[in-house]
Amino acid sequence: MSLKSWLSIAADCHFSLVNIPFGIISTQGRPTPRPAIAIGEYALDLDLFASHNGFSALSLIQPHQHVFSDTTLNAFASLGRPMHTAVRKYLQSVFLESTPFPDVLKNNKSVQEACLVPLKDVQNHVPMQIGDYTDFYAGLNHAFTVGELFRGAANALQPNYKHLPVGYHGRASSIVVSGTPVRRPLGQILEDPTAEVKKPILSACRKLDMELELGAFVCKNNNMGEPIPINEAEDYIFGVVLLNDWSARDIQAWEYVPLGPFTAKNFASSISPWVVLSDALEPYRTTGLDSDVEVLDYLKERNKKNVYDIKLEVILKTSSGATTTISRTSGKNLLFSFNQMLTHHSITGCPMRVGDMLGSGTISGKEASERGSLLEQNRNSKTVIKLEGGEQRVFLEDGDEVTISGVCVGEDGSRVGFGDCRGKIVPAVKI
Amino acid sequence: MSLKSWLSIAADCHFSLVNIPFGIISTQGRPTPRPAIAIGEYALDLDLFASHNGFSALSLIQPHQHVFSDTTLNAFASLGRPMHTAVRKYLQSVFLESTPFPDVLKNNKSVQEACLVPLKDVQNHVPMQIGDYTDFYAGLNHAFTVGELFRGAANALQPNYKHLPVGYHGRASSIVVSGTPVRRPLGQILEDPTAEVKKPILSACRKLDMELELGAFVCKNNNMGEPIPINEAEDYIFGVVLLNDWSARDIQAWEYVPLGPFTAKNFASSISPWVVLSDALEPYRTTGLDSDVEVLDYLKERNKKNVYDIKLEVILKTSSGATTTISRTSGKNLLFSFNQMLTHHSITGCPMRVGDMLGSGTISGKEASERGSLLEQNRNSKTVIKLEGGEQRVFLEDGDEVTISGVCVGEDGSRVGFGDCRGKIVPAVKI
Repeated sequence: MSLKSWLSIAADCHFSLVNIPFGIISTQGRPTPRPAIAIGEYALDLDLFASHNGFSALSLIQPHQHVFSDTTLNAFASLGRPMHTAVRKYLQSVFLESTPFPDVLKNNKSVQEACLVPLKDVQNHVPMQIGDYTDFYAGLNHAFTVGELFRGAANALQPNYKHLPVGYHGRASSIVVSGTPVRRPLGQILEDPTAEVKKPILSACRKLDMELELGAFVCKNNNMGEPIPINEAEDYIFGVVLLNDWSARDIQAWEYVPLGPFTAKNFASSISPWVVLSDALEPYRTTGLDSDVEVLDYLKERNKKNVYDIKLEVILKTSSGATTTISRTSGKNLLFSFNQMLTHHSITGCPMRVGDMLGSGTISGKEASERGSLLEQNRNSKTVIKLEGGEQRVFLEDGDEVTISGVCVGEDGSRVGFGDCRGKIVPAVKI
Repeated sequence: MSLKSWLSIAADCHFSLVNIPFGIISTQGRPTPRPAIAIGEYALDLDLFASHNGFSALSLIQPHQHVFSDTTLNAFASLGRPMHTAVRKYLQSVFLESTPFPDVLKNNKSVQEACLVPLKDVQNHVPMQIGDYTDFYAGLNHAFTVGELFRGAANALQPNYKHLPVGYHGRASSIVVSGTPVRRPLGQILEDPTAEVKKPILSACRKLDMELELGAFVCKNNNMGEPIPINEAEDYIFGVVLLNDWSARDIQAWEYVPLGPFTAKNFASSISPWVVLSDALEPYRTTGLDSDVEVLDYLKERNKKNVYDIKLEVILKTSSGATTTISRTSGKNLLFSFNQMLTHHSITGCPMRVGDMLGSGTISGKEASERGSLLEQNRNSKTVIKLEGGEQRVFLEDGDEVTISGVCVGEDGSRVGFGDCRGKIVPAVKI
């Protein structure tokens, strides 16, 4: 439903009144990071808003307002989904044209001046303290295309692929917020992978790739030893961000047997700054990719609409300024939902913690124009990717900037957007 | 060097005056976790010791004494190796028979009564807040034996194995301190892995294993994008613990392609409670396993004695009470050092953070009696492991308790020990 606000919000703005995403900001005048929401062209500083009695009409949050003075969203997330619902609805009502609380902000210029900061003046930070990061591989089309490139179509997917969400533990310390430069990694690579004697060299990565993913944040702990039942899993999902899981394909090819990707994935993972709450995504639920395999009972969800129809784009801007949309796809291109990933993750009794992040795996459609990684687009270096203005790429070059954008668009034109997840490649350190 | 203390310390005690390991304790009377050292049969509560002016003769630590009131060792570790050296030496001097500071503790009964707690009355906690945990695979004999079981001797080791420390990101949230019960995990397994059609079931793990490892804690951050030079790596290693990386072999076999072990390793990893500082291990440096491959320059260490001769044992106690030492080996059975693991981990620019833990990989000797996992001992379920009293095992059964013990013994009989890393298997949750 499209809601009208007293604040001027453009029709195509990602941060509409039906969105209300949460993030962590700082400003030049107030360098301490604190929670905020994004709305229109502004951030509402929730720390200052709370101290200006902004939450006076929401008694539920009164005993917990300290969460808005934290440097991460973990404490707010820990309050649980019913509280996220209440706070989001309250903030929507505050910005509503016909707000029942006009004195809180609409007719209160001094609170507006204190708490509304233009987004262009805001510094974003990683919104959660991320304990553990797990990256899944639930983008079936990506997994199939990559498998086909390396093993042929008959063996493209491993026997386990459709039975469980394949995943691996990732590196939490190198998750950075959109806009952070990404240094080309060094690592061991083979100059000639086909040579009989495998003799690696230390080199700057020559096959630097991006991966279009979604990330979900956990907002509830389970007890160690107690799996999360599938139909309770959504209580554990705080919200979603865009994720670029940068990948060093040549380092990965050499290192990954037998224990999986390691340093090829640990130099940087970029996320969009604003966490779109699970509530805000509800209207955009849809069914994911079809499977010819019936999953085991512990992974069967009551609600078959378990993924989100998020329009996703990848834009590559080279140092010449040439800007090309190299991929357009949808968040529905997943074989497993975040609920299923979470339940499978905890089936062993693994304790999930508030702030943990789950990556979806690379999201690709079936068409060439819908592929979420360069590896798929260049057919494992066999073809080039043509860019605007006559440039071309196989993998990323220094100075290239990759931007992932994501937005849900309702039938009435209402938007729930993620903003951007952006990163520019800077040259490797000298060896 | 064996040092004599005014405190009675048994000759075979792990926590001798030359050791001084650090941990986090709580007691019934004071439930807030805080730092301590282990010495003889006692813990010295460093929070209370500091508040009783115990550090009055060590001016260096004065501005930083708040680190002894934290609930983890991260803040103390962050002070850096020269400070660890100073604090350890000072505490040794306080306990020395001929202490230059007799009034601090030796002749001060009231401070002794306040700060010395019998170890039997102490509850231990995970000593560091662990941001990221990475498990390596540097135990060449283990890797060879396991590779031989699955791929034959000719292909036992992958081509990359001797060129880089193979590793994978692990799960930090499920690291628990010695004594914590370990619940048998549920997961997807194949009842008949040889069947043409692979159809998994949900089951309690039937091949529950242990892995004898060492863990090292990081005490210094590097800047993101800046690899840690190999000959500076030891400044980043706070100290070492014993690690049991419990593994669900049947879950692992089904899930691990193509991205490596995931839920098979995320249900529990147990560590010994006392961190033995790098300084304390210096006298026990030795050379690791020979390699016929020359590593790249960035992994070449000035000091070839880069691993530790720690006598390691694995003891299995069944619910009948039968107790069997099932493995005896040494910490020197590694192909790569923690320094090399750290440098390789950061070669991409990956930011290492204080509190991160690195696992060595399973440590096994070449002989049958020196194998650090049941998988090696039972030759992948082909033989049984004979226990005292006529019992036998293939993998772990409910009620089994595994204890890893580790100690360095000097030529003069002086000991630097780790105490125990213990865990008992409790039955899986009902499906």
